[in-house]
Amino acid sequence: MHHLTAEGLTVMLLALGLLIGCARALGELARRFHQPAVLGELIAGVLIGPTVFGHFFPETQGWLFPSEGPNAVVLDAISNLAIVLFLLVAGMEVDLSIVWRQGRSALKIGVLGTFIPFLVGLLGAMVMPQVLGQQADADNLIFSLFLATAMSISALPVIAKTLMDLNLYRTDLGMLIVSAAIFNDVIGWTIFAIILGMMGTHGAGFPPLLIILFTLLFAAAMLTVGRWLIHRILPVLQAYTHWPGGVLGFAVTLALFSAALTEYIGIHAIFGSFLLGVALGASSHLQERTRALIDEFVSFIFAPLFFATIGLRVNFLTHFDPVLVFLIFIIACAGKIGGVLIAAKWAAFTPKDSLAIAFAMNARGAMEIILGLLALEAGIIKQDLFVALVVMAIGTSAISGPLIRWALRRRQPKQLIPHLNPKLFIKDITATTRYDAIRELAVAASQQHQLDSDKIVQLAWARENVAATGIGNGIALPHARLDELSNAVVAVGLSEPGIGFDAPDGQPAHLIFLLLTPLKDPSVQLEISAQIARTFRDANSLSRVLGVNSYTEFLAVLKTLAPQNSDQPFE
Amino acid sequence: MHHLTAEGLTVMLLALGLLIGCARALGELARRFHQPAVLGELIAGVLIGPTVFGHFFPETQGWLFPSEGPNAVVLDAISNLAIVLFLLVAGMEVDLSIVWRQGRSALKIGVLGTFIPFLVGLLGAMVMPQVLGQQADADNLIFSLFLATAMSISALPVIAKTLMDLNLYRTDLGMLIVSAAIFNDVIGWTIFAIILGMMGTHGAGFPPLLIILFTLLFAAAMLTVGRWLIHRILPVLQAYTHWPGGVLGFAVTLALFSAALTEYIGIHAIFGSFLLGVALGASSHLQERTRALIDEFVSFIFAPLFFATIGLRVNFLTHFDPVLVFLIFIIACAGKIGGVLIAAKWAAFTPKDSLAIAFAMNARGAMEIILGLLALEAGIIKQDLFVALVVMAIGTSAISGPLIRWALRRRQPKQLIPHLNPKLFIKDITATTRYDAIRELAVAASQQHQLDSDKIVQLAWARENVAATGIGNGIALPHARLDELSNAVVAVGLSEPGIGFDAPDGQPAHLIFLLLTPLKDPSVQLEISAQIARTFRDANSLSRVLGVNSYTEFLAVLKTLAPQNSDQPFE
Repeated sequence: MHHLTAEGLTVMLLALGLLIGCARALGELARRFHQPAVLGELIAGVLIGPTVFGHFFPETQGWLFPSEGPNAVVLDAISNLAIVLFLLVAGMEVDLSIVWRQGRSALKIGVLGTFIPFLVGLLGAMVMPQVLGQQADADNLIFSLFLATAMSISALPVIAKTLMDLNLYRTDLGMLIVSAAIFNDVIGWTIFAIILGMMGTHGAGFPPLLIILFTLLFAAAMLTVGRWLIHRILPVLQAYTHWPGGVLGFAVTLALFSAALTEYIGIHAIFGSFLLGVALGASSHLQERTRALIDEFVSFIFAPLFFATIGLRVNFLTHFDPVLVFLIFIIACAGKIGGVLIAAKWAAFTPKDSLAIAFAMNARGAMEIILGLLALEAGIIKQDLFVALVVMAIGTSAISGPLIRWALRRRQPKQLIPHLNPKLFIKDITATTRYDAIRELAVAASQQHQLDSDKIVQLAWARENVAATGIGNGIALPHARLDELSNAVVAVGLSEPGIGFDAPDGQPAHLIFLLLTPLKDPSVQLEISAQIARTFRDANSLSRVLGVNSYTEFLAVLKTLAPQNSDQPFE
Repeated sequence: MHHLTAEGLTVMLLALGLLIGCARALGELARRFHQPAVLGELIAGVLIGPTVFGHFFPETQGWLFPSEGPNAVVLDAISNLAIVLFLLVAGMEVDLSIVWRQGRSALKIGVLGTFIPFLVGLLGAMVMPQVLGQQADADNLIFSLFLATAMSISALPVIAKTLMDLNLYRTDLGMLIVSAAIFNDVIGWTIFAIILGMMGTHGAGFPPLLIILFTLLFAAAMLTVGRWLIHRILPVLQAYTHWPGGVLGFAVTLALFSAALTEYIGIHAIFGSFLLGVALGASSHLQERTRALIDEFVSFIFAPLFFATIGLRVNFLTHFDPVLVFLIFIIACAGKIGGVLIAAKWAAFTPKDSLAIAFAMNARGAMEIILGLLALEAGIIKQDLFVALVVMAIGTSAISGPLIRWALRRRQPKQLIPHLNPKLFIKDITATTRYDAIRELAVAASQQHQLDSDKIVQLAWARENVAATGIGNGIALPHARLDELSNAVVAVGLSEPGIGFDAPDGQPAHLIFLLLTPLKDPSVQLEISAQIARTFRDANSLSRVLGVNSYTEFLAVLKTLAPQNSDQPFE
């Protein structure tokens, strides 16, 4: 056997298409409900795996996803490749320099926030290994170390995303949390690599102590010499090879070699690509565009593929043990939140901030799931515990944002897109004057929301007479604040010929947003106005909006106009 | 067997890293010598394949790239996946609307430029099948049809790239050539799909006539209903899902399904992803950024991987038959150039333009190689013919550009980067006045090129007194034309405090290019000046240059500043 048959190739293409397609679709659905995308991706695997699809159509499912034979090997190999690339991206997000800059407080929270949950997990696993899902023939020390590590790793990508959503990422508090999480990540993965080494199921069969030595040496070398070398090589590649092709090929090649090396040492391949990602991401020479290229292709093709294959391997229904799920959830939250709160008190944070830090660090995510999968494959844990870990990882990620908001009494800044409505989009406004344009949009808004259009016009016009609301680049933002509203309403009109709104640049307005916001919350209007102004800062943006034929196209253009590296992308 | 062992995984990662790394490195090297990257990628495979590496280290080579067992299957499956994605990108580059817009001349050249080489190839294969490398037990009709198709397909990507390099892409002549090549591509691939169907080695075993019917139906459906549907769905995806993740996942998923369908029908999987690419690329809703994301990841990871694996399969030394290589080359060029010349005469082009069109259409490239590989795998052709086809494909691509230049007496516009030199880069210019800055750069240039620095200063200063050469945004372009120069010399100086160069925006110049160009060719100075002005049109560009610490970093920043969608990227 040296290649797939024509039928094998057909099956492989179908299987990959199904996995990526369903994972992306359910990942999007999860985001709609403000859940992490990985939740949807896992569910996709559960749906097309043995749990659901295989339950009703065992033959078709077995044909598409055989558990033996060449197609099984190929799918397993591709999902391994996917996870290696995913860890490369996860590593690239780690910015070690932040940790040094944050100093002592970050270190305190990083250290205690790692070791207290570690101890809690260790103790739990030693006291009641069977209850917590240890495999009958697994070594209790290895099991305990694994569970301890699983309790102590936070999910940097989830934390970063949550902080960005809350506009906290670039604040002192945000940077402190991120740097503690980075510390946590690097330590946690090193411990886990050592556990894998102790098990001796991977690699060339070195004795455990040697594996631990190699692991520490490799990590140290990658973060010093490796980092330095990459920083020196990147400008040379950018200067003398195709851009971004040169750097892209370099990054992927090194990640593969690094992964091969750690797999050979006896720890898992992902450890190598993760550390390479850290070394690569640390270089200021890595351009934003190259970073985005790798990040997006991996996050939207390889990561969904990988997480969906997890659902293929495990039957999430038969292995769902409510008691175990509850226990794991409690131990995980108690250890992490408790540990971080103690550290935060020691570092003299206010109770409000301490709580926010603890809730942020409590988020686990994709990393925890990967860790669990490796332990499952290595025969350390039972499927029931794996399912419990997955539920805990997703659950803690999902509650993290709301809990931080509650702790800080902070709400997410209002965004434009959730307040748009196809019924309040007028593609060709008929008005030719400022007053008529406001009236036309006000009438549409009041019909839709049972408001008094005369009152809106009167308020907006009064505001207009204080200072006209043309902001330049062809945009106008007339607005009114109404006491009967509890949520913002935005009506949009396009005018091909343009309407004078007294803009500072003298241009007529072609795109008019009528913003109606609650009287009691003045910040809503400012937040939405600021977002619109940012989006249309580039004078070319308007021309793309003027070409749209429908509300859907309008929304599509707005999304693609959103500044790419902003902390507040349109979502 | 259901997954790779730890050793198998290590080998897979090493093998993929070697293939991608070597292919990218040699691909870059090929580009340095103005050859297509695919040449370097193939050579990489030859070097690490049986031809070279396997010759000296057969055991290590056999361990890394086994010809049997799970690792062989996995590598074959991944290279199949790579080619499916590569054809998706190739299809996305096809713009059918251009063909309709070009009208009759394009149709004439497309039709005759496809069918005359087809007939020449058919005749040759029927008259001397053994000489041309037909497999002993292969059907002569199928062999003849294959060779005829191989002689008739042009390489759209190579042609487009050559025309861009010559600044001809957006001219009438360029669009005519591109549209004829597109016509050629679509017809050629349809014929080839039909040949594959006639062989009946793929798919579910439908009778040949049914396969042909399905193929035509699928192609017609994809280019009409499929295209229409995709054009409707794209804005919805952009409006309601993550951008660019939504469209990216959609494109890859559909490409996989479409590939699975054509593989099932009984033609090769790549036909499906190619047609899907055409349908996708035709939509004006596909944003440039999404296109670039797919294109770059596939072109710089999957394509090099695929082409390198070709070198693994075939021993290019033992199967190199000089007579056959010569024959194939002659038949290919005679048929294609002759056919296009006849068509161009019919369409009443001038002899000069006719020759340029013929030389452009004569370029084959990656597509021809893929075609040959499929025929080799299907047992239609011998390895010797495959090698001859590869040589023909690369040879015709390499001579295409120079021949067009010769036919049109047109030279490539001069670019800035090839004229830079680390010795003529002064990171901290000491001068504080315009005159001294010119002198400092002139002295550096004259030492390096044995020129008279006083003469340079005198000429540049005289020019400066006619009109100062500060062009704004902190850039100055003093220049002089010297009769002793046959090629341009550019000296670059950076000044942190800035030097007054009387720019229209009143800003001092921080980046000064002293351009010394041949007296007899006034266009050189204009071309290089125009490129510099384009690069620094964005006021933020300068700040990135000012942060560099070395010549290499300077070059790296210049490259990444070059406008991305320009016809004239820095190369």
